[in-house]
Amino acid sequence: MAQKPSIPKGTRDFSPEEMMRRTYIFDTIKSVFRLFGYAPLETPSMENLSTLLGKYGDEGDKLLFKILNSGDYGAKLSEDDLRQASKISEKGLRYDLTVPFARYVVQHQNEIVFPFKRYQIQPVWRADRPQKGRYREFYQCDVDVIGSKSLLSEVELVDIVARVFSKLGISVTLKMNNRKILFGIAESIGHADKMIDITVAIDKLDKIGLDNVKAELRERGIDDEAIAKLQPILELSGTNADKLCKLEGVIGASETGMLGIEEMRTIFEGVEKLGINLTPELDLSLARGLNYYTGAIFEVKANDYQIGSISGGGRYDDLTGIFGMPGMSGVGISFGADRIYDVMLGLNLFPEELACSIKVLFINLGKAEEEASMRLISKLRDNNVASEIYPESSKIKKQMEYANRRGIPYVVIIGSQELERGIATVKDMRSGEQREVSFEELPAAF
Amino acid sequence: MAQKPSIPKGTRDFSPEEMMRRTYIFDTIKSVFRLFGYAPLETPSMENLSTLLGKYGDEGDKLLFKILNSGDYGAKLSEDDLRQASKISEKGLRYDLTVPFARYVVQHQNEIVFPFKRYQIQPVWRADRPQKGRYREFYQCDVDVIGSKSLLSEVELVDIVARVFSKLGISVTLKMNNRKILFGIAESIGHADKMIDITVAIDKLDKIGLDNVKAELRERGIDDEAIAKLQPILELSGTNADKLCKLEGVIGASETGMLGIEEMRTIFEGVEKLGINLTPELDLSLARGLNYYTGAIFEVKANDYQIGSISGGGRYDDLTGIFGMPGMSGVGISFGADRIYDVMLGLNLFPEELACSIKVLFINLGKAEEEASMRLISKLRDNNVASEIYPESSKIKKQMEYANRRGIPYVVIIGSQELERGIATVKDMRSGEQREVSFEELPAAF
Repeated sequence: MAQKPSIPKGTRDFSPEEMMRRTYIFDTIKSVFRLFGYAPLETPSMENLSTLLGKYGDEGDKLLFKILNSGDYGAKLSEDDLRQASKISEKGLRYDLTVPFARYVVQHQNEIVFPFKRYQIQPVWRADRPQKGRYREFYQCDVDVIGSKSLLSEVELVDIVARVFSKLGISVTLKMNNRKILFGIAESIGHADKMIDITVAIDKLDKIGLDNVKAELRERGIDDEAIAKLQPILELSGTNADKLCKLEGVIGASETGMLGIEEMRTIFEGVEKLGINLTPELDLSLARGLNYYTGAIFEVKANDYQIGSISGGGRYDDLTGIFGMPGMSGVGISFGADRIYDVMLGLNLFPEELACSIKVLFINLGKAEEEASMRLISKLRDNNVASEIYPESSKIKKQMEYANRRGIPYVVIIGSQELERGIATVKDMRSGEQREVSFEELPAAF
Repeated sequence: MAQKPSIPKGTRDFSPEEMMRRTYIFDTIKSVFRLFGYAPLETPSMENLSTLLGKYGDEGDKLLFKILNSGDYGAKLSEDDLRQASKISEKGLRYDLTVPFARYVVQHQNEIVFPFKRYQIQPVWRADRPQKGRYREFYQCDVDVIGSKSLLSEVELVDIVARVFSKLGISVTLKMNNRKILFGIAESIGHADKMIDITVAIDKLDKIGLDNVKAELRERGIDDEAIAKLQPILELSGTNADKLCKLEGVIGASETGMLGIEEMRTIFEGVEKLGINLTPELDLSLARGLNYYTGAIFEVKANDYQIGSISGGGRYDDLTGIFGMPGMSGVGISFGADRIYDVMLGLNLFPEELACSIKVLFINLGKAEEEASMRLISKLRDNNVASEIYPESSKIKKQMEYANRRGIPYVVIIGSQELERGIATVKDMRSGEQREVSFEELPAAF
């Protein structure tokens, strides 16, 4: 065991400094969730494979971390058995928070008060090839309301996005679209069956440009006539209201499409009436992968930092159907804690005081001084001031270096003379200034 | 998938109500840890098996949850390979927080500022047979300082225990002992090699009584002469000082034993001088299982509720040696969140307001009323009042029932008349009282 130990690739240790920053992000997000009446929920890290398999597509099934059945399984099984993971593994690690949430709602449907507003902040695991910014263990931070079709929820989610990022100090753009509109488009150009192909293609509009999108559409079997019909949609401009109005002209014949247009009108009006200081932007090229979305979809990007979307979500009409409980409509969004962390670090948005876990260090200058210091520290702690004494009376240089390296803002020095006089020397480690404070006044001095 | 889904045995979902209570416990504990300068740390859920195996004894190795290597491993391996878990699994789930902490310290020794004071609150997993109060996934809540031999740390831990449980409102007894004293006892009665047997036996003193302990000692190969020498130790009484004084008479000849006695004297004096309002009780029958402890050991029990120890720990002189970094002394304790939860629930110690995740529900009485309500809710949220509107204008009875079942203390009713008059009817759901509040005054009314 003499070689230096390591951790599995794709996983991370979080140092105290990183933890304090991450906690700041999570606490900020939670405080907003609570303000809107969302309550915390936690589910087990391991779920039965029967709960997880088949929920994320074949690709997803491959990326599940499976847990070996405990006990000396080997002896009991034939070679064939051993080659079937199912025989040696019945449990898997949570892949996301959505499927466990659906499982929870179905399992506890009789105790739950609907509409059920919950948030969940827990790690998930994916056996993905690790690379920069992609980890095998990472936190998801989901907020969902299930059991109501009301579009007020969508409006609230816009408000939540606005408040979270303004609290964190991140300037963002919120793009929205609607799956019903995307279907309406496909339907109107006579390719209702090709909605996915069409959205995948137009999803690339700002990356590859109009002509290449057209080319891709042809490859995907969309005829020129249909593409011609699509053109005005790809070139929509103006306010959200303008876009919806023009869109109505093109896809108005599609019942589903019109439903989507009406939904977006209601949401945009709600956001405006509430005076939410973040205006969503209708972006018809926004598709979002997950195919359980059935209505409005959201995507948030940081304006001043190059990184993928830092938050996203949408409306789903049948999340719990997979567990035999149909017709539960819900809507939710997820915040990408790791990317938000990178944005805040990159833009230097973390409050300075986060850096230090403690405010006052008492220098340890020997037995008698130590005793006096401990009594004072106890009073400081009573006053909620995080403080400590260096545990040994080592060289002052070493103790000062400890204070510096831990970023402790104040150092208190109590030597034999100070002890006699009943005063302490307080040093501000940033300014270097020193002042004398009486023992009586010290507990209130920070 | 029509059958109702379930979760693996030994795991739990935590409902919003349970989560709010658990969060209250964790936040209280964290706030005390921070006050003492301990900083948060998190390590990955999965560690390399090479890090975990052999650290918890053969029994522990069996209880590790192993993770199946991803990919289609089966095809590549021979039957023999398949029968060796090592070939199909290289990772395991965290079994406790201590070994990952040791691994972290060794791996990051060059970045860490010693003495390193960290706390860690994360789940651990054990493939144990589930039973009442024993789970396969549960949280541990550890606080340790490593890199100092100073007994000030032990004194601080007593203070931490005192503050945590007084904040939680749990009256506790803190028992302490010292591994050096236990060794000294074994040495003094001529059975230095039998320290474990002796401690295991006297550990049962209050359960099975003196005579049975003697019988067990005989079974374990301790001769009558030695047992005679042991007798006065088993019958020690009086204050900690008295006990230590009498003990010195019996084991004073053992150098290690005397060291232990001196350590305990220093700790007890420190606790007294600090005026910590929790007096540890020297209990020579306290042994604590983990054999990496080398000095003081702690165990906390609730006074008014029958349950095992709710907190415990001790001093270890060589935690990181197993990873090739010898001589790092440390001391720490662990808080048992699940048992603390049971104690607080059993003694009804949770603050009442925890029950409700939201303070104000606005009844939804239609479009116009909804708009006015949403604007007011926005102002309430600006004032940090958690509030929401029922998402649909359902029957008032249904909306009131929702408020009751969620334990929402205030309901705001804005009907057409209220809307005209610019006033809201506020109902206190506990007292049933109603009052009228103008829209202007509403945001500040809670």
